[in-house]
Amino acid sequence: MNPDLRRERDAASFDAEKLTYILDGGCERTRRRREIENLILNDPDFKHEDLNFLTRSQRYEIAVRKSATVVKKIRDFGIADPEEIMWFKKLHLINFVEPVGLNYSMFIPTLLNQGNTAQQQKWLPPTQGLQIIGTYAQTEMGHGTHLRGLETTATYDPKTQEFILNSPTVTSIKWWPGGLGKTSNHAIVLAQLYTKGECYGLHAFIVPIREIGTHKPFPGIIVGDIGPKFGYDEMDNGYLKMDNYRIPRENMLMKYAQVKPDGTYVKPLSNKLTYGTMVFVRSFLVGESARSLSKACTIAIRYSLVRHQSEIQPGDPEPQILDFQTQQYKLFPLLATAYAFQFVGAYMKETYHRINVDINQGNLSELPELHALTAGLKAFTSWTANSGIEACRMACGGHGYSHCSGLPNIYVTFTPTCTFEGENTVMMLQTARFLMKSYDQVHSGKLVGGMVSYLNDLPSQRIQPQQVAAWPAMVDINNPDSLAEAYKHRAARLVEAAARNLQAEMKHRKSKEIAWNLTSVDLVRASEAHCHYVVVKLFAGNLSKVDDKPIQAVLKNLCLLYALYGISQNSGDFLQGGILTESQLTQVNQQVKELLTIIRPESAALVDAFDFQDVSLGSVLGRYDGNIYENMFEWAKKSPLNKSEVHESYHKHLKPLQSKL
Amino acid sequence: MNPDLRRERDAASFDAEKLTYILDGGCERTRRRREIENLILNDPDFKHEDLNFLTRSQRYEIAVRKSATVVKKIRDFGIADPEEIMWFKKLHLINFVEPVGLNYSMFIPTLLNQGNTAQQQKWLPPTQGLQIIGTYAQTEMGHGTHLRGLETTATYDPKTQEFILNSPTVTSIKWWPGGLGKTSNHAIVLAQLYTKGECYGLHAFIVPIREIGTHKPFPGIIVGDIGPKFGYDEMDNGYLKMDNYRIPRENMLMKYAQVKPDGTYVKPLSNKLTYGTMVFVRSFLVGESARSLSKACTIAIRYSLVRHQSEIQPGDPEPQILDFQTQQYKLFPLLATAYAFQFVGAYMKETYHRINVDINQGNLSELPELHALTAGLKAFTSWTANSGIEACRMACGGHGYSHCSGLPNIYVTFTPTCTFEGENTVMMLQTARFLMKSYDQVHSGKLVGGMVSYLNDLPSQRIQPQQVAAWPAMVDINNPDSLAEAYKHRAARLVEAAARNLQAEMKHRKSKEIAWNLTSVDLVRASEAHCHYVVVKLFAGNLSKVDDKPIQAVLKNLCLLYALYGISQNSGDFLQGGILTESQLTQVNQQVKELLTIIRPESAALVDAFDFQDVSLGSVLGRYDGNIYENMFEWAKKSPLNKSEVHESYHKHLKPLQSKL
Repeated sequence: MNPDLRRERDAASFDAEKLTYILDGGCERTRRRREIENLILNDPDFKHEDLNFLTRSQRYEIAVRKSATVVKKIRDFGIADPEEIMWFKKLHLINFVEPVGLNYSMFIPTLLNQGNTAQQQKWLPPTQGLQIIGTYAQTEMGHGTHLRGLETTATYDPKTQEFILNSPTVTSIKWWPGGLGKTSNHAIVLAQLYTKGECYGLHAFIVPIREIGTHKPFPGIIVGDIGPKFGYDEMDNGYLKMDNYRIPRENMLMKYAQVKPDGTYVKPLSNKLTYGTMVFVRSFLVGESARSLSKACTIAIRYSLVRHQSEIQPGDPEPQILDFQTQQYKLFPLLATAYAFQFVGAYMKETYHRINVDINQGNLSELPELHALTAGLKAFTSWTANSGIEACRMACGGHGYSHCSGLPNIYVTFTPTCTFEGENTVMMLQTARFLMKSYDQVHSGKLVGGMVSYLNDLPSQRIQPQQVAAWPAMVDINNPDSLAEAYKHRAARLVEAAARNLQAEMKHRKSKEIAWNLTSVDLVRASEAHCHYVVVKLFAGNLSKVDDKPIQAVLKNLCLLYALYGISQNSGDFLQGGILTESQLTQVNQQVKELLTIIRPESAALVDAFDFQDVSLGSVLGRYDGNIYENMFEWAKKSPLNKSEVHESYHKHLKPLQSKL
Repeated sequence: MNPDLRRERDAASFDAEKLTYILDGGCERTRRRREIENLILNDPDFKHEDLNFLTRSQRYEIAVRKSATVVKKIRDFGIADPEEIMWFKKLHLINFVEPVGLNYSMFIPTLLNQGNTAQQQKWLPPTQGLQIIGTYAQTEMGHGTHLRGLETTATYDPKTQEFILNSPTVTSIKWWPGGLGKTSNHAIVLAQLYTKGECYGLHAFIVPIREIGTHKPFPGIIVGDIGPKFGYDEMDNGYLKMDNYRIPRENMLMKYAQVKPDGTYVKPLSNKLTYGTMVFVRSFLVGESARSLSKACTIAIRYSLVRHQSEIQPGDPEPQILDFQTQQYKLFPLLATAYAFQFVGAYMKETYHRINVDINQGNLSELPELHALTAGLKAFTSWTANSGIEACRMACGGHGYSHCSGLPNIYVTFTPTCTFEGENTVMMLQTARFLMKSYDQVHSGKLVGGMVSYLNDLPSQRIQPQQVAAWPAMVDINNPDSLAEAYKHRAARLVEAAARNLQAEMKHRKSKEIAWNLTSVDLVRASEAHCHYVVVKLFAGNLSKVDDKPIQAVLKNLCLLYALYGISQNSGDFLQGGILTESQLTQVNQQVKELLTIIRPESAALVDAFDFQDVSLGSVLGRYDGNIYENMFEWAKKSPLNKSEVHESYHKHLKPLQSKL
């Protein structure tokens, strides 16, 4: 073990192991997670290969092999709980990309949600055995966010009792679905349903695309890989073009809507429940933001503890770079953010499960707020984690740019989260819609509940200067709950400002929709402030639940840093409306610097508590042993350019030139 | 041509061609640039290949071939002016990475700067003919920023009149130099010079590493590629380990310091001039920030004009996504930034050339300010461009993640700029050092000149509230010069705050150095504010130089947007000290939204004016023809995974599973 890391770990004031239990939700869960992770670590079939040295096609092949191995092993080991399967896959896949992933995350769940009993009986068994490898094809080349704009058609032909599927334009080609290009033999395709000359909008169809056994695409199907991307090299994101391609009537998922053999369309009673899947996926992504940022912080902080560079005092030995205030200022607010998001992720999961019980009992009352909250928090946490991962990479200087740091891969694997499952700006505007609705509700005299209940306290008239003057006295910058109140005031102010701007635009413009567009910058700001408040509030609220005093103390400091750093970065919002005074703001900036010093000796243990196995970091720089330089040198030798002493391009291109010139 | 793009271009109020002349520095320069670019576009030897589909080794080979071709062609075409060579290479190399690049950008210039006449006569001719392919090896695995920490040694042996080069530790292995891994046969190596038992610090040595003709590494030399990185796939960034490797005494560059045959060390008279190269490279990088951000804006804005999605009013056709205010808010401030940085880049180049004349006449008086300014502006512009490029990518939604957008490559090629040639935080602290020195000078009663002359106006005592109250009246948010004044006040305030914090720390702590570290967050903020002011001032100052009224009008709006957006993003800084009032800030936010609407119809022409040839964007999404979807489909078909209908991994891994389960 590197002497710097050993000393740093021993210096912490708390027991990192106990903090791991808190993050996992109990020591028994930590034990079980490690047990499952060890299955992989001790299994020769899962010997870790470094994909960085391979070509795209080799990486894809390894991912397919890994996928196949995982299917067998999960069965062999008898792992059935979805969360345990997740632990298993996460360690195994490092950055969690697998070509058959959508079979499990989208194809099977959609069958379960939208297929009737007969359909489930027919299709589920072969999917679980990977005879059928399914994916989910919704997005088209020209259409993402706006579902009504999708162009793929499914026209019912009562003569043969078949649907005829068509991609009528280039823009209608299905584009992006994971595993569609090469891996899947079936896809659930979203298409505009036409029957008896009428269009009934989007419906889901099971479409066989490749023959089982030969895996060849069927006639009428044009399918392939969409080409190289920023990341996701192992994934065959694909395209699908259908030309008068016929499928049996029974392949339409008919739990809700139906098409009778004669072509009669039967309307669904309700499909609010499909709403639930979206909420689930987005709340899961909040946890992913936490995890990815935690990984990046682990690598950058460990590296900053092992790397010695420059000097603080002339003549002294080179300090650890984490002793520079600027380095602490880059990394510790991100570490605090990672902790904040861990707690938010846990809250989202918990809330989803709680509300899911209600939903299954037909009680949908809490769903709108949960929907709005997951949308906004998905956007808020993924944007923050996204820029945070890059900040961690750049905090590792030149070496952060090498794939040996693991950071470029964490970034490129994470960054699509800002775009998929609801583009972040669109998500923020969905949250804003809920905020505006709640604001209107309060204005019409009704109270609102949950996280927006602060809107009840807004005076219906513009706040008087005297009232404003009462706020600053209330903020105690060393009290997390008081800081949560400050964030609440900021959110309330920005929600109100957006609502007023929206009203003003409506007075001048033709329609509500145009006014909405012309206020959308303000609406996004209001949503961000709302989400920021929720995160601070949840973090602060978690502190009292922690029994262990040393851990409570260090978490309190992280919570203070998270909140105060956010104030310092958005200081205008807090000065406006007098939430903070100028002299308080100066104190905030000073206190942020103090907290950096306080957190410094805890930082090694704080990243250890995330308890990432070395292999799951996919990083040479972030390894426990801290022999970064020896490890880097060994790693570099594997570069494909080092296969021979002299690269062939010398003889082909440079040598002829040397003799000629 | 895409009908949307044609309509948009025709809608502009100004002549994009004339704006191109302004950016190029005159219509004759535009003509000549295009002439050179056309040499490449019309030459079959330069047929553009899309590197995205190739393996690293193939990409490296193509880059070597291109390098060799460029050497021949530049000679054939008789292009000799360095800037013209740059135009040539830029179009040709797209994102400007070439394995032999360091031969020209570092090896030859170092020979010219530090080699004596005999050395230049011996080494220059073969380097220019690529018999000798050189690179520059300074950075070591364990040492970057802190030059005194470099460990490589060169020990003089008077018996054989040789230097013995050693890499005594793993951390001392040379690491990162471009072209070192496979391409170069010589390197200028920076090493600690030992003679007669004394260490005389860093000196430069010409080290042969591979044999000309066979290209094999010499005994005692261990050299290779450092492995895959975030980007720079075509570049063989390398490592070099030397084990008692002997070179002749004459291989030490001896223009300044010398070692006599008997081992006597002769001190250099002065080497302040090496300073000049650093300043040159950094001022060049400011222009690179402008160029990379301009490219990203071009792609994202063109795509946003061609992409139709969602709806603003129900029932209306899908609008161009650039009609959404949130999309304008993402892209137009970046477009304004790209223009701001274009002008800053031009200013830096001009200033460098002006001061260079002075330097050559022995007048170094302006060098410290220029050095401080280039350091800060290199950091300020590269950080902003870096996050801006990613914002452009994400503004293209899912398709931005595909390599067909060209944006991931622009990003990964640009992002090292934040780290190399002076890590950005270190750069900001260098600027801060100059700001603190200037502040102290003013306090000791001397006036300072240049861009920091605003410090002369700082009252030596804390500004009285009455004086503060005088500021807001001065800011006219529709006047670029007045906004530059506001930025000046902010910079002055933050420089003073940092100076006071530094003084306060010095009162409490042992040393100036520790105090400096504990104030460094404030110092970086002060530098950023200073640089931000310089950019606004230069942009505003350029407006009056533009004769063409319609162009002046649109540039003024871009300048206003740049300045007002910056205020809105840093509103706390402007509220503090009363530079702006709260109600002015509300107007600023409103005015930003107004400007988005005003710039919207100009945006197509504003990116056209950057005049990037399609091929130099390396983007399918950003092409002039605007057939994004057809082009994407054609592009995707070339994916390596599409080489056969069924990928071999199906037969190897999935089929056995299908029959087994």
